[in-house]
Amino acid sequence: MNNHAPVPVGVLGASGYVGQELMRLLARHPGASIAFATAESSAGEMLEGQRLLKTDDAPLQRAELVFSCLPHGVSGRYVHAVRAAARRAIDLSADFRLSSEAVYGLTEVTRPRVAGADLVANPGCYPTAALLALIPLAQRGLIDSSREVVIDAASGVTGAGRSLKREFLFGEVSENYRAYAPGNTHRHLPELRDTLARESGFVGDLIFTPHLLPLKRGILETIHVPLARPLDQASAEDLYDSAYAGEPCVQLMRGALPSLQDVVYRNRVAIGVVLVTNVQRPRLTVIAAIDNLVKGAAGQAVQNMNVMLGMPETMGLAC
Amino acid sequence: MNNHAPVPVGVLGASGYVGQELMRLLARHPGASIAFATAESSAGEMLEGQRLLKTDDAPLQRAELVFSCLPHGVSGRYVHAVRAAARRAIDLSADFRLSSEAVYGLTEVTRPRVAGADLVANPGCYPTAALLALIPLAQRGLIDSSREVVIDAASGVTGAGRSLKREFLFGEVSENYRAYAPGNTHRHLPELRDTLARESGFVGDLIFTPHLLPLKRGILETIHVPLARPLDQASAEDLYDSAYAGEPCVQLMRGALPSLQDVVYRNRVAIGVVLVTNVQRPRLTVIAAIDNLVKGAAGQAVQNMNVMLGMPETMGLAC
Amino acid sequence: MNNHAPVPVGVLGASGYVGQELMRLLARHPGASIAFATAESSAGEMLEGQRLLKTDDAPLQRAELVFSCLPHGVSGRYVHAVRAAARRAIDLSADFRLSSEAVYGLTEVTRPRVAGADLVANPGCYPTAALLALIPLAQRGLIDSSREVVIDAASGVTGAGRSLKREFLFGEVSENYRAYAPGNTHRHLPELRDTLARESGFVGDLIFTPHLLPLKRGILETIHVPLARPLDQASAEDLYDSAYAGEPCVQLMRGALPSLQDVVYRNRVAIGVVLVTNVQRPRLTVIAAIDNLVKGAAGQAVQNMNVMLGMPETMGLAC
Amino acid sequence: MNNHAPVPVGVLGASGYVGQELMRLLARHPGASIAFATAESSAGEMLEGQRLLKTDDAPLQRAELVFSCLPHGVSGRYVHAVRAAARRAIDLSADFRLSSEAVYGLTEVTRPRVAGADLVANPGCYPTAALLALIPLAQRGLIDSSREVVIDAASGVTGAGRSLKREFLFGEVSENYRAYAPGNTHRHLPELRDTLARESGFVGDLIFTPHLLPLKRGILETIHVPLARPLDQASAEDLYDSAYAGEPCVQLMRGALPSLQDVVYRNRVAIGVVLVTNVQRPRLTVIAAIDNLVKGAAGQAVQNMNVMLGMPETMGLAC
Repeated sequence: MNNHAPVPVGVLGASGYVGQELMRLLARHPGASIAFATAESSAGEMLEGQRLLKTDDAPLQRAELVFSCLPHGVSGRYVHAVRAAARRAIDLSADFRLSSEAVYGLTEVTRPRVAGADLVANPGCYPTAALLALIPLAQRGLIDSSREVVIDAASGVTGAGRSLKREFLFGEVSENYRAYAPGNTHRHLPELRDTLARESGFVGDLIFTPHLLPLKRGILETIHVPLARPLDQASAEDLYDSAYAGEPCVQLMRGALPSLQDVVYRNRVAIGVVLVTNVQRPRLTVIAAIDNLVKGAAGQAVQNMNVMLGMPETMGLAC
Repeated sequence: MNNHAPVPVGVLGASGYVGQELMRLLARHPGASIAFATAESSAGEMLEGQRLLKTDDAPLQRAELVFSCLPHGVSGRYVHAVRAAARRAIDLSADFRLSSEAVYGLTEVTRPRVAGADLVANPGCYPTAALLALIPLAQRGLIDSSREVVIDAASGVTGAGRSLKREFLFGEVSENYRAYAPGNTHRHLPELRDTLARESGFVGDLIFTPHLLPLKRGILETIHVPLARPLDQASAEDLYDSAYAGEPCVQLMRGALPSLQDVVYRNRVAIGVVLVTNVQRPRLTVIAAIDNLVKGAAGQAVQNMNVMLGMPETMGLAC
Repeated sequence: MNNHAPVPVGVLGASGYVGQELMRLLARHPGASIAFATAESSAGEMLEGQRLLKTDDAPLQRAELVFSCLPHGVSGRYVHAVRAAARRAIDLSADFRLSSEAVYGLTEVTRPRVAGADLVANPGCYPTAALLALIPLAQRGLIDSSREVVIDAASGVTGAGRSLKREFLFGEVSENYRAYAPGNTHRHLPELRDTLARESGFVGDLIFTPHLLPLKRGILETIHVPLARPLDQASAEDLYDSAYAGEPCVQLMRGALPSLQDVVYRNRVAIGVVLVTNVQRPRLTVIAAIDNLVKGAAGQAVQNMNVMLGMPETMGLAC
Repeated sequence: MNNHAPVPVGVLGASGYVGQELMRLLARHPGASIAFATAESSAGEMLEGQRLLKTDDAPLQRAELVFSCLPHGVSGRYVHAVRAAARRAIDLSADFRLSSEAVYGLTEVTRPRVAGADLVANPGCYPTAALLALIPLAQRGLIDSSREVVIDAASGVTGAGRSLKREFLFGEVSENYRAYAPGNTHRHLPELRDTLARESGFVGDLIFTPHLLPLKRGILETIHVPLARPLDQASAEDLYDSAYAGEPCVQLMRGALPSLQDVVYRNRVAIGVVLVTNVQRPRLTVIAAIDNLVKGAAGQAVQNMNVMLGMPETMGLAC
């Protein structure tokens, strides 16, 4: 498949849901080998054949590229140590997503910059789906910025990590559904708004409301877009076809809508669009689905690694 | 508790999810007794101590009031037969919801008309939650009708009835989530729009998008309301407190948001409101939750029966 | 319904899953009124219209009968205080189940003793189902005590209480299934063995293995019984019919097997029996299902209260 | 990885749950390429990049090896056509599991025979777990054949296929749990009994009771074994370690019990053993878990293909 020896990579913070998913992907990746993996309370345990080290003991020099799945606020310091050791880094926390130090790794949109980057900030799960859904319209000036874009998002529980809180007990989540962080208070909103402005020039109001689903994996976002001018259904679909022509990790659905089962365990965004009837001004509903642990985190990180290392972009990934 | 003999009531179409829930409620209702219950393919079986008759064999004369849980399109004919037999009727199908023949039974809003009605059209599940959430704002002229109201709704599977379709198999619904009837094509939208106009005078664009949750019971609607003038959080909450003062089946949540577990197995709507920050024009997010089988169907039908028969409104109901 | 004023009752430990279920039942019980309810960390909150007191502040004198849903090891001390205050008590913990101080409240089996008791030990959830399934056979000497009785039980998560442990996070329970406390180490086994011996004279080996289901409510036990002599299917069913004739909370299924949805939210045990084919010695499989929070805890406690107070046994209960 | 061109393989009946899983595995398999795939009602649709043909139109000559995921009773005829075309076959139906025409493909047990076979009968999901759990004990004469072996098994819904039956609707399976095919009537029992006798010489009574779990994937079997002589915990674990030394798809758990989340999406059986206390005669509880679609069907079929074609046994499989 490739003639080169596998590239040694390291994983900081391997024991959370995202870290475990990344380890699972890297362990099967034909072009990479895991040089080390770290954890805190789980240090000493085995994961995908690796004995987990303490994060402070990570032998950074042994890897050519280091992933950090450490928590927000903690990750930045360790990533700086990786860079000081002259190793390339992909940070899966939020610590560099709003920073000019890093390239924002939304692969389909920033691929050329990712290729040459020494530090990539891997996007948040909610922004990944929303940006891939909105950028094609925004780049073409099709969103009416005088009206609000409403984004209703629903996520499985792994999006919240493995923290031990009462609200994440089975008895509280099962047979239940609820909104959280309402009124535009979710920390992913600035990331979404700034990136959309930078990549498309769109400046307008966004309303973002996440919800918690009684399942483990997957994000589905229903995005209500006010159109700057009328579109018909076919031209809306053509627009997305054109924007994502040849993209292996984007599935456009014509005459159908994405559901979570189209995307779980895959490094894929599935997107469907529907014109809204019975309204006076033109409107499009865009629905985007991803696996929050794969395209929304670990899978996209591997996709970025592949780009950084010059490997085939989907190597080791099921798209 | 009351000194009168229980009122004999009949149930047409008792074997679907709504019919079973109604039978469960009526079997425990201290002021009513089940005179007969009917079904089609399940005729002959026992349900809550009743042998189910064929619907065409229903002894309508034995009941003072007859519920119909028959399917849309079928129910109307049988309800006309009930009226021809001079019996009062509550129709849980959609057949009379847009008709002047019947009083629309959204109890908190149309209570006085329900009290004297011979024929009540029980509201649809999605409209029940949306109307109870929107009417307080609409009646006060607080919704900016120049911008669209966006309603994202999510429902459990019992909302779709017991029909044997591949899309409702466990393997298709479990660990999954999806939108359906997008682009304003759901049949509940005209009911919602017309009732909102009639009860509040509001005429503006609504965008309604339902979703299917991997659970059995419950509807949660996240409603994005453009405000005609600024409100603060406290006055928004006060407004709902005032609109629903003394209502036993409305739970207003201050400083919290409703979730499905607040409402399942109860004849209650739970409502929470949150002002939206980081937007240029005033906006309120209203979240409403109901049990689709109870306040969204069988429970509200019993609530209406209690009003029609002059019984305490919550008799036999857990609110 | 009854001519008497409701009997004032108190609830110690009302905020756990069992306590909440008991409060829900008592709030709707026509013959009882809640005089007080207590909690620890939730003291001060409202539950079913009651402000929760600290348990140490419980005004025991105000109640005629006090329920304790306090944890094992803690409950005993408070129940002694209730008895010292000359109030009758029903203890839902394990603290008196093996003690001669209390009457064991398996209503269908010990009803006459419950009626006159001042202190009732409410049975554990697993023993309730197993005992009601086994006692009819054991009392008739039909179990071959030279071979082991194998009891495989599966329970929903509420059986484990609301404790904040990693193993009860949604991410660990959902899409999962596992055995726990294997090898006869579950603390319910002595209660089951001793009660079976006391009520039926059976002394033989039991193998009890509980499992955790990815759902909230319900216990189903599959019980493999070696028969002391051959039975046919009809006589096995007749035997149970005869043992439980007239029992309102026992549902015997002929030609069918119980499932959890037959029993959840009901104060009922559902029992089915099947002769085993293709074996050399006679064997019967008995399957019993209950709602662990209702017939397995709060519902049976109310049933016992009704018996103690001379009320109709199923008052306030859906069987 | 290997220097040979991928081997062309065909799949008959690719659209069911097992067929889809097999297609997913083959599409990522570095040593195989899908030459064709067939279906009935889904013919014409795309699956893993293949246009599904009608089964009768399968170009058998294009493949070196053909898998059949056709239904029991139908598969046999098509597999005979594959053999008539001089192609090797792996049949995932039950049609050859009791037949001398085929080698039974329980890879860890029958590996040498699989290697040279032209026709392999892939084991049923329940027997796979039970046999891998029991054979180490049975081959050593450790099971007391004068007492019954009790096997309680629980399976996710995909084990029953995608058939459109009311009992598999979400509303019937979710929040539910039940036994089925009780009393030794399940069609997997003869396969289990005969194979156990053939591979170990064990002839004794088995009691097999399957249950339906509210989840999609996974089988867990709790197996109660009467021991012919006493064992201690360490020697029981050592026995399994020795029996499965070097097996890449067997995970033995010491001091822990398997759960479904240890095995889903993996081609692995996880086995744990616990000595039973508080009984008079020696007994061992053996718990085995597999993913019914992977090690219980499509994954084991790929494992067998790898053995038949002389490839590394776990190629293309996550164990």
